[in-house]
Order: sequence, then C-alpha cells, then structure tokens
Amino acid sequence: MPTPVTFYFDFSSPYGYLGSQRIQAVASKHGRTIDWHPILLGAIFKVSGQAPLTTFPLKGDYAVMDFQRSAREVQLPYQHPEQFPIATVAAARAVWWAKEHSDASINQMVDELVHALFKAYYVDGKNISDAETVVATAATVGIDSAALIEGLQDPAVKERLKKAVDDALANKVFGSPMMKVDDELFWGNDRIEQLDRWLTRGGW
Amino acid sequence: MPTPVTFYFDFSSPYGYLGSQRIQAVASKHGRTIDWHPILLGAIFKVSGQAPLTTFPLKGDYAVMDFQRSAREVQLPYQHPEQFPIATVAAARAVWWAKEHSDASINQMVDELVHALFKAYYVDGKNISDAETVVATAATVGIDSAALIEGLQDPAVKERLKKAVDDALANKVFGSPMMKVDDELFWGNDRIEQLDRWLTRGGW
Repeated sequence: MPTPVTFYFDFSSPYGYLGSQRIQAVASKHGRTIDWHPILLGAIFKVSGQAPLTTFPLKGDYAVMDFQRSAREVQLPYQHPEQFPIATVAAARAVWWAKEHSDASINQMVDELVHALFKAYYVDGKNISDAETVVATAATVGIDSAALIEGLQDPAVKERLKKAVDDALANKVFGSPMMKVDDELFWGNDRIEQLDRWLTRGGW
Repeated sequence: MPTPVTFYFDFSSPYGYLGSQRIQAVASKHGRTIDWHPILLGAIFKVSGQAPLTTFPLKGDYAVMDFQRSAREVQLPYQHPEQFPIATVAAARAVWWAKEHSDASINQMVDELVHALFKAYYVDGKNISDAETVVATAATVGIDSAALIEGLQDPAVKERLKKAVDDALANKVFGSPMMKVDDELFWGNDRIEQLDRWLTRGGW
C-alpha cells in the first residue's frame, strides 16, 4: 500500500485552496490518498523569515492577479476574499479535531470539511476566522455543532495543532501548499504536475 | 508580426538559467522571438522588499534542492555555484552593450552571449561577477574583447542597465525569471508551461 500524499496547507492560502481542488485526482491516479495537514503559516513564517505574499510591493498585486488567473484556467470558482489574510486557528483546529476523533464517522468527514471550509472562504465570501462560521460550515457537511464547539475548546485539540505546526517544520515545510510524498517535498499549487510526473517516473 | 516574449532575468538566478534554456522553444512555437532583458535583482528587491531565495531558513535549502531536481527532470546540466548569489552587473552590462550596439553583427550575438554567460556560471563553475570572466566568456562566442572591455566602462552602457531596471519595475517585475507577452506577466521557470497554454488558448 503506497503512503499517502501529505498536503500541508493554511486555509488562508489561495494556492492551498486551488491545490486542494487538484491534488486528489493526481494522488488517486497513483493509488495514493491525501493526508490533509492544516498548519498556521504565521507560526511557520516566524521560523522561515517570511511574510504573507500579498504584503510585498509588486509581488502582492501579481499574486492577487495570479490567484484569479490560475483559478480561471482550470475553471475553479474563486473570489478573492475581502478580508485577507485571516487567522485560521479555528478552521485548522476543526480539521485536527475531526482527523483524530475517536468516532470514525467523524474522521470520515475530514475531506468534506476541508473542502467546505475552503469553499466558504474563497467562493462564498465567508470569514472563516470566526469559530462560529467554522462551526456553521462544518454543520453543512453533517458535523454536529455542539460536539465541534466543545472540540475547539479542548486543550488536547489546541495542542494537536501546535504539534502539527512543529511536525511540519520538522519536515522542512515553509509554505502552503506543500506536498510530501515518500521523502520528496514539492512546494506550490503549480508543482502538482511535477509531483504527478515524479510519481509516474518514480523519481529522477 | 506577434510581439516578442520579454524575458526578464538576473544571471544570478538559477530559475533564470533554467528558464533561458526552455523559453525559446515555447516562443518559437507561437511565432515569437525572445527579448532578453537582464536586470539586477538587488535593485528590484529594494523596491519589492525581498531577499535572495537561498537566504531564508528552510526555503533556502529547498530552493537549492529544487534547482537541481528541476534541472535533472529536463536533463539540463546544473552545478550549484560555490559563490552564490553573485553581483551580475558586468554580465548584465555586456548584454545591454551587445543588444544596443550600432554594429548589427554584435546584436546578433545576444542569444549566444546570454547562453554562454549562464553556462559559464551554472555549468562550468566560473564566477561571472568578474568583468574579466565576462569578457573571456563573450570571446568564446566571437565577441571582440577590446570592444567589450571598452563597452563595460561606457557611461551610456551603465545608464542603459539602470534604465533596464527601471523599465522592469515599471512593468511590475519583481523576480527572475519573469516573462511578459502582450500585456500578460508570468513569474517563474515553472510557469513556462502556463505561458505556453496562454498563447495556445489566446488567454482565458
């Protein structure tokens, strides 16, 4: 059984959203599943000495144009959020809560939850920095609101997200999305085709 | 007659080198020529608030790995330079001198000169920050050394490079390589395929 493709991302990353819509088909083609690994880029950037893409002169404007052009190319809906970037602690915690829940029926909702949160932010214009919006979005895929509200306050879930950021750094992750497959790391939505070729050729 | 693809680059950019080896085939396919436009990233970064890729923790190591992996994929020779990054003023001035020389036989050597300088640095391990190495490299493609030595000291050539940097900034260039075709800007060696699709589809 081949190992999954680990997909490291921050919900406040447009390329993370675009990649999340494209990675599944590539992974499936090679008999791989996706291990969704939400992180907090703010914490990562403290180590890697970076800042949000859109804060740089020239590069920022290009990025906002390119998010939209890259989405249009593959006919994905994309509405650049009015509030950007945002804090994604609640959204990331929700995913870790679901991923590691003792109830398997909740684990099975992780895929849908990830896509629903991305859609809420990049398609429906909802500000998912609010815990309430995260809970309401999770409800649309069938996740019990009371259970999730409790989960978001659970110290174990908070710790889990911190550990997830540390794990990402230990795996040399510095951006979003980054994909790790076997021991190979790929950075960027625009490298999914290269990852595909890597798996096809078995490396080079 | 379709307009050329303007290829903005710094000789101290490995992705600039890789892109320089791949852009010509794509441009030709669409009946376009290349307008080589060397710039100085140091001057650009002052405006765009950035720093050389390899200076960042994690991202720097990934970049050095990725330069080599990207080269291997398409079977381009690549030896990460011992001295990196370097000042590329002399190399960039040499190209501008040749591009705008009154002698057409010198203009016609620009393609070869660009490739020779990139090869000297990324394949042969020569430090092209030295004017002497630039002159010796230019001689290998048939450029008269005495004429080039004089050109590198010419205040008009120095001014031309400054203007080239300003023109790049006016065109919203913040990195290397960046390619402009008609009014569309693409950033990165890994976006040459997207540029190809853009020209094939006539945009989207």
